[in-house]
Amino acid sequence: MHSRQTGPVSAQLNPDRSEWDVIVVGGGPPGEVVAQYATQFSGLDAVIVEQELLGGECSFWACMPSKGLLRPVELVANSADLAGVTGARVDVDAVLARRDKIVNHHDDTSQITWATGAGIDVIRGRGRLAGPKTVTVDGRTLTARHAVVLATGTRANVPPIDGLREARPWTSRDATNLHVVPHRVVIVGGGVVSCEAATWLRGLGADEVTIVEGSERLLSKNEPFAGDLVAEAFTASGVTVKTRTRVTAVSRPEVNDAGEGLIHGGEVTVTLSDGSVLRADEILVAAGRTPNSDDLGLPSVGLEPHGFVAVDEYLTVPGFDWLYVVGDLNGKALLTHMGKYQARIAGDVIAARAAGDPPPQRDRAVVPQVTFTDPEVGSAGLTEAQARDAGLDVGVAEYDMAALAGTYLVRDDYRGRAKLVLDGDVLVGATFVGTGIAELVHSATVAIQGRIPLADLWHAVPSYPTVSEVWLRLLETIDSQRRGK
Amino acid sequence: MHSRQTGPVSAQLNPDRSEWDVIVVGGGPPGEVVAQYATQFSGLDAVIVEQELLGGECSFWACMPSKGLLRPVELVANSADLAGVTGARVDVDAVLARRDKIVNHHDDTSQITWATGAGIDVIRGRGRLAGPKTVTVDGRTLTARHAVVLATGTRANVPPIDGLREARPWTSRDATNLHVVPHRVVIVGGGVVSCEAATWLRGLGADEVTIVEGSERLLSKNEPFAGDLVAEAFTASGVTVKTRTRVTAVSRPEVNDAGEGLIHGGEVTVTLSDGSVLRADEILVAAGRTPNSDDLGLPSVGLEPHGFVAVDEYLTVPGFDWLYVVGDLNGKALLTHMGKYQARIAGDVIAARAAGDPPPQRDRAVVPQVTFTDPEVGSAGLTEAQARDAGLDVGVAEYDMAALAGTYLVRDDYRGRAKLVLDGDVLVGATFVGTGIAELVHSATVAIQGRIPLADLWHAVPSYPTVSEVWLRLLETIDSQRRGK
Repeated sequence: MHSRQTGPVSAQLNPDRSEWDVIVVGGGPPGEVVAQYATQFSGLDAVIVEQELLGGECSFWACMPSKGLLRPVELVANSADLAGVTGARVDVDAVLARRDKIVNHHDDTSQITWATGAGIDVIRGRGRLAGPKTVTVDGRTLTARHAVVLATGTRANVPPIDGLREARPWTSRDATNLHVVPHRVVIVGGGVVSCEAATWLRGLGADEVTIVEGSERLLSKNEPFAGDLVAEAFTASGVTVKTRTRVTAVSRPEVNDAGEGLIHGGEVTVTLSDGSVLRADEILVAAGRTPNSDDLGLPSVGLEPHGFVAVDEYLTVPGFDWLYVVGDLNGKALLTHMGKYQARIAGDVIAARAAGDPPPQRDRAVVPQVTFTDPEVGSAGLTEAQARDAGLDVGVAEYDMAALAGTYLVRDDYRGRAKLVLDGDVLVGATFVGTGIAELVHSATVAIQGRIPLADLWHAVPSYPTVSEVWLRLLETIDSQRRGK
Repeated sequence: MHSRQTGPVSAQLNPDRSEWDVIVVGGGPPGEVVAQYATQFSGLDAVIVEQELLGGECSFWACMPSKGLLRPVELVANSADLAGVTGARVDVDAVLARRDKIVNHHDDTSQITWATGAGIDVIRGRGRLAGPKTVTVDGRTLTARHAVVLATGTRANVPPIDGLREARPWTSRDATNLHVVPHRVVIVGGGVVSCEAATWLRGLGADEVTIVEGSERLLSKNEPFAGDLVAEAFTASGVTVKTRTRVTAVSRPEVNDAGEGLIHGGEVTVTLSDGSVLRADEILVAAGRTPNSDDLGLPSVGLEPHGFVAVDEYLTVPGFDWLYVVGDLNGKALLTHMGKYQARIAGDVIAARAAGDPPPQRDRAVVPQVTFTDPEVGSAGLTEAQARDAGLDVGVAEYDMAALAGTYLVRDDYRGRAKLVLDGDVLVGATFVGTGIAELVHSATVAIQGRIPLADLWHAVPSYPTVSEVWLRLLETIDSQRRGK
């Protein structure tokens, strides 16, 4: 985590003490940020308990390595679709070496240095709740004066498919940290992890990549055109997409103990609900996430020992004014940036409550997300379906992103689509699909969060010729609808 | 111009009639858009008078070809700075062929088809004002029932440097439509046109590119760090930047009549104010723009026959309720997107006034701009200096864009910087310098235009790991300042 702050230097790794103002269990980005925010201006002290690497799933096994693998693939794909650029190709060894550098070879020294430099102690070990304001770590008992924050996140869900677990499938960690690119891969599931992994596996040279998704389409939490456009692009690039299809059985006679990112055995046979049988070198399970709540000591305070741990708008567990949950574990939005946002809120709330002040903030953000497929998929706020379910006064506008000067310049065969979702005169959702939209999403997040009326948004001029000009076309589309033309 | 609308089909090229509701002189994007907006929902009719190509400077000689040349150069530069991508290079012939396709080989048939399809007549010829609501075109007299709109834009300014004009220098038109990449080029001026041209000339293989700029730095209308970062990158890429230096004399014994985009003679000798002498194959003048007002018939209604033509917030010339000026010619902001914005306002105002209604809109936009150098420079609203000159309650925050996870993934040697300018608690300006910021600018435009309070902006969460996360760091920087740390 990059931070501006350098705090007191007394903090250390594995200190020999037992009481802090704030104890954070789980040191991914949300855990780091809540400790930072709780302490930085307050005089409180904090410790983070982390059983693996400080920096967590995102830094070492998810966002960072996946985007590290995707960026070279993206540049090569863009170059291949632009007359005027020639010869671009991925150098797989160099891509993997760069990925290793990005995850710092799974060494978290720099994160430890950041934390202790910011005045935050770190204990390596498995933390479990053991009663009010009490946490145990490998036999030690820690006490919190003010708050315990749970931030243990999620892990890959392995669905109960006949033979799947026994086949030692890859999960997201193997896919992001791959050392060998499998020749043939079957991916179970069609969400973000699946679609991003298919993109880099194919981009790095996998010959046969097949996505098997039970629902109607890929990326099914998005506007329907998102999954459709990504599926079209996959098909064009040689990735097979099987929607409305389930894996019914998996068989792998030879299983081995190869490490993370290596192929976990011999040929896998995958039987599908349509009766077809696939043979692959590896099977990747990307079928959702399971909260890490089942061995967290939750029953010690009377909470259920499984599932997501629900919180209120202050990230506090209802009825437990000292217990906070941030990040994936609360189930609100399984995204690093939302976990970090929750952590900023929770940190400020913890510091305020410790000082006897009311909470200065509450969780009230719209949720943005970017999926780094080709085309990219970005969204903020609600889809049309979500807005209708919420009973809003729904209006929508869509536009073909290929019909813009700005996109015509970006690629020779640009494909994309954009959509705005309104509640009366206020924007509540936006989706953009296309090359170069990752940074465009924030304009929608700002517009939605700021509840800017359409009449004012009309005066926010996008630069020419950028992809952002889709805003102009979408607003013109709404204007035309309202004038009855 | 891309448009959603298909209007009556009675409109035509060079029609034999003499009266319209609206006469537009100059058919660049602002001229096209004002005609579209004035007519599309109003029942008014309109004609555009254009002496060259419908679509104007932007479509054929500026934005479109320049970005067409820059995109392949950008991809190759990005690839060169990313371990994992190998072999990418520009194919100059293919780049130029793609540029030719982007400018449609200087054929405006599709634009004529769009205009007439939208119910807008087009006359090819030179339009001049010839009295109230009267325009002459090559001997014909046209009369406007409601409005005349002037949208003749600007042309390259050639400063009065000894020998410069006689040397037949390249202007922006030659540089965007180049057919031969000069071996050695001297560029006079260090603004947007200069910096973008230096980027593609060097990227397409020019061996010696020298920018000569009289002021302290490049891109001097931006925050100072923008020009500094671009100059550093130029130096690293082999472009020579000479600031605080003027061209004092130019000599070119052999001048020829090569066409646009070809080299205009023999070796050029360029003498600089520091006494040094440069020799080049071509000299490009990128020293500002001159309004096309000097042969426009302005004296026929008592206006000055030179300079920019000032307008009020309705794009109307004060004292002439039938006379509008949109685009570069009014001098407000020499940017296609701002000209098109003004045209949307003016079109709506013309239609409303013709119906006896008050103007429904006024020009109240903040101005965004993207310069497609490497690194890109993007801004919206005011610089710190402009905010101070305006007497605002100025606060600023800056952040090193290289210190973000999102930028670390984009390039191996990312360089950039960002800055927010506040007036009290309201954002009034933003500048981003770095790779991948072109689409990020619109988030600032929306925030500034919407006057979103900082306290709300804090809840607009950027996706991780994108370049947009610089917003978080900037807002944290402001927060730390205000907490006195």
